[in-house]
Amino acid sequence: MVIAVDAMGGDCAPRAVVEGALRSAGALPVEIVLVGRPDQIEQYLPSPGRRPNNLRTVAADDVIPMASASPRRVLRRRNSSMFMAVDMVSSGEAQAVVSAGNSGALLALSHACLGVIEGLRRPGIAAPLITLQGPGVLIDAGANVDCQPIHLAQFGLMGSTYAQYALNIDNPRVGLLNIGAEPSKGTDLTRAAFELLSQAAINFIGNVEAEHIFNGDAQVVVSDGFVGNVTLKMTEAVAQFVMEELRRSSQKSLTTKLGTFLLRDGLRQLHERYDYATYGGALLLGVQGISVVGHGRSDAKAIANAISVAYHAVEGRVVGHLRETCGLLVGSPS
Amino acid sequence: MVIAVDAMGGDCAPRAVVEGALRSAGALPVEIVLVGRPDQIEQYLPSPGRRPNNLRTVAADDVIPMASASPRRVLRRRNSSMFMAVDMVSSGEAQAVVSAGNSGALLALSHACLGVIEGLRRPGIAAPLITLQGPGVLIDAGANVDCQPIHLAQFGLMGSTYAQYALNIDNPRVGLLNIGAEPSKGTDLTRAAFELLSQAAINFIGNVEAEHIFNGDAQVVVSDGFVGNVTLKMTEAVAQFVMEELRRSSQKSLTTKLGTFLLRDGLRQLHERYDYATYGGALLLGVQGISVVGHGRSDAKAIANAISVAYHAVEGRVVGHLRETCGLLVGSPS
Repeated sequence: MVIAVDAMGGDCAPRAVVEGALRSAGALPVEIVLVGRPDQIEQYLPSPGRRPNNLRTVAADDVIPMASASPRRVLRRRNSSMFMAVDMVSSGEAQAVVSAGNSGALLALSHACLGVIEGLRRPGIAAPLITLQGPGVLIDAGANVDCQPIHLAQFGLMGSTYAQYALNIDNPRVGLLNIGAEPSKGTDLTRAAFELLSQAAINFIGNVEAEHIFNGDAQVVVSDGFVGNVTLKMTEAVAQFVMEELRRSSQKSLTTKLGTFLLRDGLRQLHERYDYATYGGALLLGVQGISVVGHGRSDAKAIANAISVAYHAVEGRVVGHLRETCGLLVGSPS
Repeated sequence: MVIAVDAMGGDCAPRAVVEGALRSAGALPVEIVLVGRPDQIEQYLPSPGRRPNNLRTVAADDVIPMASASPRRVLRRRNSSMFMAVDMVSSGEAQAVVSAGNSGALLALSHACLGVIEGLRRPGIAAPLITLQGPGVLIDAGANVDCQPIHLAQFGLMGSTYAQYALNIDNPRVGLLNIGAEPSKGTDLTRAAFELLSQAAINFIGNVEAEHIFNGDAQVVVSDGFVGNVTLKMTEAVAQFVMEELRRSSQKSLTTKLGTFLLRDGLRQLHERYDYATYGGALLLGVQGISVVGHGRSDAKAIANAISVAYHAVEGRVVGHLRETCGLLVGSPS
């Protein structure tokens, strides 16, 4: 398995990306290709004799900026590290691409270069969720802000397939994010999507609210990209807020400092679990290849997490399974 | 000032409501009227000679159930505690009504009995927010799931007025909840609402994301009722999740138990601040009177908080100020 990594993508690139790729090369049975400016990548790599055998570099001179870039312009920048990394997947040289760069650009490039799986209307971003019962996934995390019911139904099918084959969840429970349990709750969109999801060949458990996400009732949470994006950012912000409040309390006296010290393992574990969910990397499901969108603020660990997400998706043959599911997709063109 | 309290509303009614009302009667310069079944209320009240002078009861035989009830049916139940409490406001006997009962029923009753302020298209629910810089408000927290741009613009105006006069925030910063800062971000709805909010006579700071809510950049956060409701429930669920994870960690050993003990003040404060925001009671803004929607799970403290929300709204003459603002409402019918 070959994973192409955009070495220039992210706020801390290329350093964090190179370091993360080195970790992954040591941990996973994959070949990692770092794509980017050779001189900038080289300075963070060990000397040639000491490099892992399963890591190599490919030169790309151009870099797509982190700030917003128009999709049309991005598609013309064929010498950019991101374009070349995506192109390795479309040419078959690699099975997955990972980038913590401009996420809009990565979506546009993945969509255009890899193409959409037949029968699917819109690819969706599957983002990892933490729950009290283990991993979960939310789809769509922001690729499609204005959705139709069929899009949400297809997100449910894709999320279910992903959870089953990449996260190894048997018969994953799929819920529709809503503001109440009854089928009649919510918007015109959610009511129509509820109908379609009920007919789909998945384990649809109905409408779910925030509490059902965190207690693990739903392992696949379906929403449009606007609500999904707000939800994920809210999760990140609340967790940070609570941690910050705790940090402030813990600094108040020697007593509280000692208390924090004694609780350090629990706090660290919590932080790690939450970090993984936030920075683990989201996946663009529905394109003909694996494309992982890393968090812009990714450090080396986050990059290694994102590469791991790509690895499990390829290993689980997620794209192949999605293609097979396409025949079953509700409302897909025949 | 008279505040009518639906003694029968909420999972822990009437006990929690009566106890909460007693607290408020001791703390605020108001007259509190408990509306409900006399025999059930009496058992939680002190003996007649020991009751506070500013608390009295009004008999109502019927109770609107917590589970969903159709608005039409609710409007016919004139002997219900909720109907009678709302009616006290419409007749001028009370200035505010507080109920932790069926929130859909309270919205329908407040809307129908109190009437909507002239020029306003739709009342919206203003819910309290916690931020690192102090109190804030989110509007709409769930009254309107399918919104038009003008509704969001009016929510911004109402939220700003409420924050200024009830929360005493000078020139409150109003933000539109979105998935990015640029005006072009989001849905057709948010883009059009951005335009209208920019023209409104408020301190509109543009689009905001989750992190801007918690760091206090925006003191008034505007969204449609679907996104607002999901956002609030997400806040509650994440905070509960983090607390639950901490609780689990803290039970692991004597060391961690000691750590938790030493941090107890900070943890309690955090819990209280978050509790207040969650259970403090949301306000239906835009009707001709003050109507406070308590959390269904309200305990005595939450009821007292909700009464306090009502008190500050009446004290700040929020309804009067909203009426004055109506002339300035963008897109209001002339």
